[in-house]
Amino acid sequence: MPENEINVDEINEVLIKRAIAFPAAEIYGGIAGIFDFGPIGTLIRQKVKELWRNMFIWAEENVFEIEGGLLLPEPVFKASGHLDTFHDPLVQCEKCKSMFRADHLVEDTTGERADSLALEELWGKIIEQEIKCPKCKGSLTEPRQFNLMFETEVGATGGKKAYLRPETAQNIFLDFRRVSHAMRATLPFGIAQIGRSFRNEIAPRNYLVRMREFTQMEIEMFVHPEQINNHPYFYMIEDQPIRLITRKMQAEQEKEPLEITAGEAVKQGLIPNQFMAYYIAKEAQFVEELGIPRDNYWFRELLEEETAHYSAANFDLEIQTPMGVIECIGNAYRQDYDLSKHSKHSKTKLTIQYENKPVVPHVIEPSFGLDRIFYILMLVTYQAGDRKWSWFKLPPYLAPYHVKVCPLQKKDGLPEVARELFEELREELDAIYDQTGSIGKRYARADEIGIPFSVTIDYETLENETVTIRDRDSTEQIRVHVDDLFEVLHLLINADATWEEIKGSFAVESSKKSKGKRK
Amino acid sequence: MPENEINVDEINEVLIKRAIAFPAAEIYGGIAGIFDFGPIGTLIRQKVKELWRNMFIWAEENVFEIEGGLLLPEPVFKASGHLDTFHDPLVQCEKCKSMFRADHLVEDTTGERADSLALEELWGKIIEQEIKCPKCKGSLTEPRQFNLMFETEVGATGGKKAYLRPETAQNIFLDFRRVSHAMRATLPFGIAQIGRSFRNEIAPRNYLVRMREFTQMEIEMFVHPEQINNHPYFYMIEDQPIRLITRKMQAEQEKEPLEITAGEAVKQGLIPNQFMAYYIAKEAQFVEELGIPRDNYWFRELLEEETAHYSAANFDLEIQTPMGVIECIGNAYRQDYDLSKHSKHSKTKLTIQYENKPVVPHVIEPSFGLDRIFYILMLVTYQAGDRKWSWFKLPPYLAPYHVKVCPLQKKDGLPEVARELFEELREELDAIYDQTGSIGKRYARADEIGIPFSVTIDYETLENETVTIRDRDSTEQIRVHVDDLFEVLHLLINADATWEEIKGSFAVESSKKSKGKRK
Repeated sequence: MPENEINVDEINEVLIKRAIAFPAAEIYGGIAGIFDFGPIGTLIRQKVKELWRNMFIWAEENVFEIEGGLLLPEPVFKASGHLDTFHDPLVQCEKCKSMFRADHLVEDTTGERADSLALEELWGKIIEQEIKCPKCKGSLTEPRQFNLMFETEVGATGGKKAYLRPETAQNIFLDFRRVSHAMRATLPFGIAQIGRSFRNEIAPRNYLVRMREFTQMEIEMFVHPEQINNHPYFYMIEDQPIRLITRKMQAEQEKEPLEITAGEAVKQGLIPNQFMAYYIAKEAQFVEELGIPRDNYWFRELLEEETAHYSAANFDLEIQTPMGVIECIGNAYRQDYDLSKHSKHSKTKLTIQYENKPVVPHVIEPSFGLDRIFYILMLVTYQAGDRKWSWFKLPPYLAPYHVKVCPLQKKDGLPEVARELFEELREELDAIYDQTGSIGKRYARADEIGIPFSVTIDYETLENETVTIRDRDSTEQIRVHVDDLFEVLHLLINADATWEEIKGSFAVESSKKSKGKRK
Repeated sequence: MPENEINVDEINEVLIKRAIAFPAAEIYGGIAGIFDFGPIGTLIRQKVKELWRNMFIWAEENVFEIEGGLLLPEPVFKASGHLDTFHDPLVQCEKCKSMFRADHLVEDTTGERADSLALEELWGKIIEQEIKCPKCKGSLTEPRQFNLMFETEVGATGGKKAYLRPETAQNIFLDFRRVSHAMRATLPFGIAQIGRSFRNEIAPRNYLVRMREFTQMEIEMFVHPEQINNHPYFYMIEDQPIRLITRKMQAEQEKEPLEITAGEAVKQGLIPNQFMAYYIAKEAQFVEELGIPRDNYWFRELLEEETAHYSAANFDLEIQTPMGVIECIGNAYRQDYDLSKHSKHSKTKLTIQYENKPVVPHVIEPSFGLDRIFYILMLVTYQAGDRKWSWFKLPPYLAPYHVKVCPLQKKDGLPEVARELFEELREELDAIYDQTGSIGKRYARADEIGIPFSVTIDYETLENETVTIRDRDSTEQIRVHVDDLFEVLHLLINADATWEEIKGSFAVESSKKSKGKRK
């Protein structure tokens, strides 16, 4: 893993200052674990969502997106198990009343995993290790289970108990029958959803990592149990290299991920079936599109104690970042757990016909945490020290704007020409216009929010219809003819050509003496 | 208003059956006022959102979109006034315990507006008119105020009270300072948000009209108080015709809306300022894009008793639909109410520099109800009776898919050619492939979800590279050359050419004898 000297607090400060992501209700002191995303954050998140839809919905023909209710009634969570088991062990300081997760305190003290210990075991460790309140050294209460769902009441006096959904997946199971019938779906098919989920974390932390309100992008892929190792398009991804850390490797303290193709991993039994391997391979492609270096991510098989009893396999995508390893995608093989539970509790048949027989399909669930993915993107693309300002080296297609258009001066007809070009560019690209302040400051402001290219209209433009393009990453400028501008920008933004290639193919000489200075 | 014989219950049934919009947690009996949107509903809603973003964010350069937290802490709503005044008068039946809105019961009995009556006045009417429980004729309790916000607790034991936001606007006011600074915004500028809001309605009703969980698309436009009648781009919309029902017209029982241009309406003082007129004019354009006939909508000035004390003017967009008049966009001139309140309660300066002086801007708020707009779209485009199946005459650019691609038969190489064409089409258009069942059934299924065009690959395609295009609205088919197909579809989808024009310019003769039958 590369050592990274970047200070995460500094990045968070930048995210706040540039209104990219900042505490909700900030002027009232905020509310821990809930964030607002400002204009630049919102644009980048929209592009991540589009990338995801492109790869996981539109590129497939049998994945349907839905948009479900966030407030769901109590019986849903009785059936799903959330009401009984979706909790964390809570301890409170008897003196200062601060609250902590008992397992986190035990882990911090013993250095060993504690997330699967029972309440009594945790209490035993607290006594044995004499663990005290980290804030005031006061004594801790005996741990108790704290349910992580936000509860409310729907309707007036004596209304119905309802909960904010703790995962978007539940709507999908609830809608399985309705959607599969209406869409005439046949196995295998998927239902996807992008939306908010809510967890009343005891101790939200790590900025956008452990949030109380967060956005998930989830797919439940419904598959005939006998076809789980038979994905119809497996051949399309079987050569995709992936990086794995299996249970066995973890037991053997092997930290370097195994590089293997998706096809080989299934053949060797490292990934339990083709459907899960298909998603792991596509997630590897997705992470590459995010611009994460290959060395910095891997899929870790969860240990038995980390895996829900109904899940036959779990692989988490983990990414190395300046703030440590962040898990941002989970893959679970939930088998028929959810549909069977909901079928039983709702007394509804949740089957689908397959070769004229009713089947309860199995479920493969790839679950993406949008906020974490977005945060990782900002963390790993953050650049500081090389310029007077910090900047984000975002992949051009994920930048909030593709291009900034500037007139060199606010006079002599340059703004008019620049506006005209801007209006043309924005028909096809995400463009922003800026004529305020010195050109250097305008480039710096473009860097600060990750805009990859700036196009400047100068006096030479008026003479020979050439403009300059400035490259964010190298800070170099070249001059191109306006007729080539669209092609050049498209090539650069889609990463179909490098800056060096563009320089070689499209750059024209400046007719001015000042040309040397422009670089 | 046109009389419409369409049965709304029938349309709702269709929305459920085709999984377009249906009750959330339906298999558990649902939860009143909360809905899930299935694949087709989600696609259509995405297009409505895109249309809105195009017209109200991307077409402007000074409107910034944010994405804020849904759970906000109590002090926010203390300041906004929601905690003290966001309530409805509730009565309960002493016998069957059913709950009702007192003002609705009084209105239903007296035929007069009751939404601004005080609790004592409502109680007086209930006694005077001897109003009983509409369900069981039992006696009603004295009305009390019921707050419409959903309450929950954030954090463990003794956590903080928080509420699900009742409008997306609040995040915008809370983020005003942070966003305006970061974006170097100068007056006038806007902050926009698309997102869920929540109201614990006593009696949700009218399907997607009065919901407990709904999606808003809101803009708060911040304007210098002295510039409120001076919109920099007013000239762009001043000739836009709008239809108004003013307070004076309502007092005079005048029901036919006044047709007037936006510019003239401001000049005559019918709309209080250019900023509000600008949005009303753009909303008229938006509604036209939705395909609503001009006769079926108008902007109604709210009466004094309908207007919040802090609002200097309110105009609601109302649309005539098969289920009656639905209000789906509200425009309010909130002045400096929100920023002043939040500034005082949070002890934060919420001003912006204007010509080197701090100003508390005034606010014009256009607020769009996505669910209502979506529902209106489905209600007014619903067609029944002319075919064996019901269908939706959606504008092509708002349809879930632009085009369905079908091989005439599932043999003789037709599917391969159709797939290839489909793959090409979906690069640029929202296309769906269908080879299941008879071609007639496939066209019917396209109609049922509003797909405007179906392209069929038949034996003639193999000979001369022509395909048929079927038009949903006329059910006519023409044959065009594959080379013209993209152009034809683009023209049709963007409504740049009518079906008749396409027939005149692009249709080719079939070389088969069967040609006559195809129409």
